[in-house]
Amino acid sequence: MPTIAIREATIDDCPLILRFIQELADYEKASDEVVATVPLLRESLFGPTSPSRALVCHVDGEEAGFAVYFHNYSTWQGRRGLYLEDLYVSPKHRGTGAGKALLRRLAQIAVAGGCGRFEWSVLDWNQPAIDFYKSLGAVPLDEWVRYRLAGEALARFAEAG
Amino acid sequence: MPTIAIREATIDDCPLILRFIQELADYEKASDEVVATVPLLRESLFGPTSPSRALVCHVDGEEAGFAVYFHNYSTWQGRRGLYLEDLYVSPKHRGTGAGKALLRRLAQIAVAGGCGRFEWSVLDWNQPAIDFYKSLGAVPLDEWVRYRLAGEALARFAEAG
Repeated sequence: MPTIAIREATIDDCPLILRFIQELADYEKASDEVVATVPLLRESLFGPTSPSRALVCHVDGEEAGFAVYFHNYSTWQGRRGLYLEDLYVSPKHRGTGAGKALLRRLAQIAVAGGCGRFEWSVLDWNQPAIDFYKSLGAVPLDEWVRYRLAGEALARFAEAG
Repeated sequence: MPTIAIREATIDDCPLILRFIQELADYEKASDEVVATVPLLRESLFGPTSPSRALVCHVDGEEAGFAVYFHNYSTWQGRRGLYLEDLYVSPKHRGTGAGKALLRRLAQIAVAGGCGRFEWSVLDWNQPAIDFYKSLGAVPLDEWVRYRLAGEALARFAEAG
């Protein structure tokens, strides 16, 4: 049985986290969309007003994966939730239980923090991930579609007021 | 032209916000899912560790609508974003521009706060809202499906570790 160790990330983990972010983007067929840098991660993940937190995972002492999460909010529940933005386990360490261990740690953080929900998003073609999430008891919110305003469209709309 | 005024919500607005939350849930055909109460909103929206903020909107001096938002995070961008959890304008005040004014204020908060993205979710049958969002330049992230682990399934998964 591999030994899986999960800990909170520190600012010194930013080069590792960036490497994993790039590997995950490659897998999601979005290699060109990563504009994060180590200095940006240092400020945005570990600055005083950062909304987000990160975990890193080692398998048998080797760097194996990471997770980044923040707290969202449900008006219906009147309480915060936990939203998993990214979870990644490197190909070498898949099948070791590292992904499930990261998810379980996040579920424990959610429960301990009084969160009503633990949520994340998955690409609709990623069937292995979907099957895995369903096996845990997670349900798809497939009536909902996320919309995004970014870049010039965001700037233009903000300025028009 | 109606006069539209938007301000940050205060803890004294919680009864009003709860009324709007219930009206929005009724519209979304989820009346029974609102378990929020005024005390829960006071703690979760205005407590020291709250991840979320609220705006209230008046039209010609009358209470007309609200928005609740929080900061999410993009690992690809290495920066936070702004996520709009709920936006609601009461039927009496629709067509006044209140909804667009709330969205524009949020876009301005996003830009001023250095957010790379402004996002929200919409029910896939709510075509008037979808048409409106597209007219602003927002794009659907329709490859992504959100998954949720909540209630007993969340507790069971957290405890199994």
